[in-house]
Amino acid sequence: MDLKEYLKQKCQLVDQALERFLPAATELPSSLHGSMRYSVFAGGKRVRPVLMLAACEAVGGSPDAVMPAACAMEMIHTYSLIHDDLPAMDNDDFRRGNPTNHKVYGEATAILAGDALLTEAFILLSGEGQGGDPAARLRVIQEIAVAAGSRGMVGGQVVDMESEGRHDVDMATLSYIHTHKTGALIRASVRSGAIMGGASEEQFKALTRYADAIGLAFQIADDILDVEGTTEELGKDAGSDQARGKATYPALMGLEASKARAQELVQIALDALAIFDDRAEPLRAIASYIVKRKS
Amino acid sequence: MDLKEYLKQKCQLVDQALERFLPAATELPSSLHGSMRYSVFAGGKRVRPVLMLAACEAVGGSPDAVMPAACAMEMIHTYSLIHDDLPAMDNDDFRRGNPTNHKVYGEATAILAGDALLTEAFILLSGEGQGGDPAARLRVIQEIAVAAGSRGMVGGQVVDMESEGRHDVDMATLSYIHTHKTGALIRASVRSGAIMGGASEEQFKALTRYADAIGLAFQIADDILDVEGTTEELGKDAGSDQARGKATYPALMGLEASKARAQELVQIALDALAIFDDRAEPLRAIASYIVKRKS
Repeated sequence: MDLKEYLKQKCQLVDQALERFLPAATELPSSLHGSMRYSVFAGGKRVRPVLMLAACEAVGGSPDAVMPAACAMEMIHTYSLIHDDLPAMDNDDFRRGNPTNHKVYGEATAILAGDALLTEAFILLSGEGQGGDPAARLRVIQEIAVAAGSRGMVGGQVVDMESEGRHDVDMATLSYIHTHKTGALIRASVRSGAIMGGASEEQFKALTRYADAIGLAFQIADDILDVEGTTEELGKDAGSDQARGKATYPALMGLEASKARAQELVQIALDALAIFDDRAEPLRAIASYIVKRKS
Repeated sequence: MDLKEYLKQKCQLVDQALERFLPAATELPSSLHGSMRYSVFAGGKRVRPVLMLAACEAVGGSPDAVMPAACAMEMIHTYSLIHDDLPAMDNDDFRRGNPTNHKVYGEATAILAGDALLTEAFILLSGEGQGGDPAARLRVIQEIAVAAGSRGMVGGQVVDMESEGRHDVDMATLSYIHTHKTGALIRASVRSGAIMGGASEEQFKALTRYADAIGLAFQIADDILDVEGTTEELGKDAGSDQARGKATYPALMGLEASKARAQELVQIALDALAIFDDRAEPLRAIASYIVKRKS
């Protein structure tokens, strides 16, 4: 299959839906809505929404039914980036080559835009206009909220922050950071797509294995890119992890072993998809792409 | 009825439930969970949860069924206070006589504790352990998320922030701030209690009128207290609104007219409850109490 074309098409659909779901930048308070939109449309690759759509398709569901949840997931991802970039956190001036939210809108509005995007996600997930079985939708809300909360993404962010600059970070801590900070939302994306698509218990478990494997592979690949990529390719400073004294897979287990581990995880992900037919081709292609990408 | 005793009993029940629902302070990351608990148990009056319980009782529902939603509401209220107090926002060092979250845990953890409390609310609202009709529960999630989002509380906070220090704030703007920043959550609390209690359409509308009236009365009373209360009674600096150049009802329409308006709103709230029997006594007593309280 042509993954590039698939990703392009899905990204467009996601962007159109986000455009529709987000309050207009002209709606008051316009600074807030402008700030929310600024970061949502700052060139994200829509990895999580695409995974949700692809997981839904893999079990034979209609991608239309998951679009609101897919957009909700992208809003949560975006809020986490806005808050991560704040002066009190990573203090980043640029993200994907553009000034970060607080550099453009100020710190207070950036904090509130993040808060509002997180909240907007749950507005979308519980919205009346959507179809779908109410019990399944509650399950999706639970899945996403747990993944985003103190036992998921936020917990991972706290441990990441507390580990920065320390030289005694071990593999268990690094693994906690990755499975929580980035892995949790990827897992919730795939599982939510599966739930909304009507997955069987067997399919749900297989997709969970797939998600956990690619979530970690994705993060290891990110760590490798930070060592090997160029600043131009990444849209942020290459080598920034090292400069910050961040624990990474290459730092803890070496570059070659990290590459081998990422490759192994891709294979685990592909094996998990063995029970699926051709409708899982996009998920297969995404797994292989993760370790080949340049940014 | 003995409102003081009623409030005391309900507060205890809410506190016990919050204790049960929040992750333990010893659970990792303990800085995060400690920070979340610090602000949740910092002496809040549990106004919103009590209103939700009382509204549910007024329509004949069981208060047990709304306890998770009531606690979710208190978590959202608490997150909003943590973020409001941040240096980039109101930059407050004290809240209810105690150091603010970021003074104790640092700015980064305070931001993340707020994020996690907001998310925890939706974990609770969508949790499996709860009973209740799934469609009604989705409606409650929608109600609460809309009230907390950019068209509700966060929107009100942005306009409040942008109005600070300006001397041309008119009644329309002040009204927008109050109905959004504090009114929205009070309305959602009452309406969510009504939904979970199985309110009829007529009861739901009456309770909405009640909520809107007491929400505004509550805010006007707050403005009046800031002028008339003592620092000791308030647990924060008296006269702080004026010192900050904040628009208030007393500043815009005078102290006596503000008191008359608050009294009028209490009467509107009581009139809205005319269709209810004795089970609405707590709601009636709360309405009258709002303009009499000293803190």
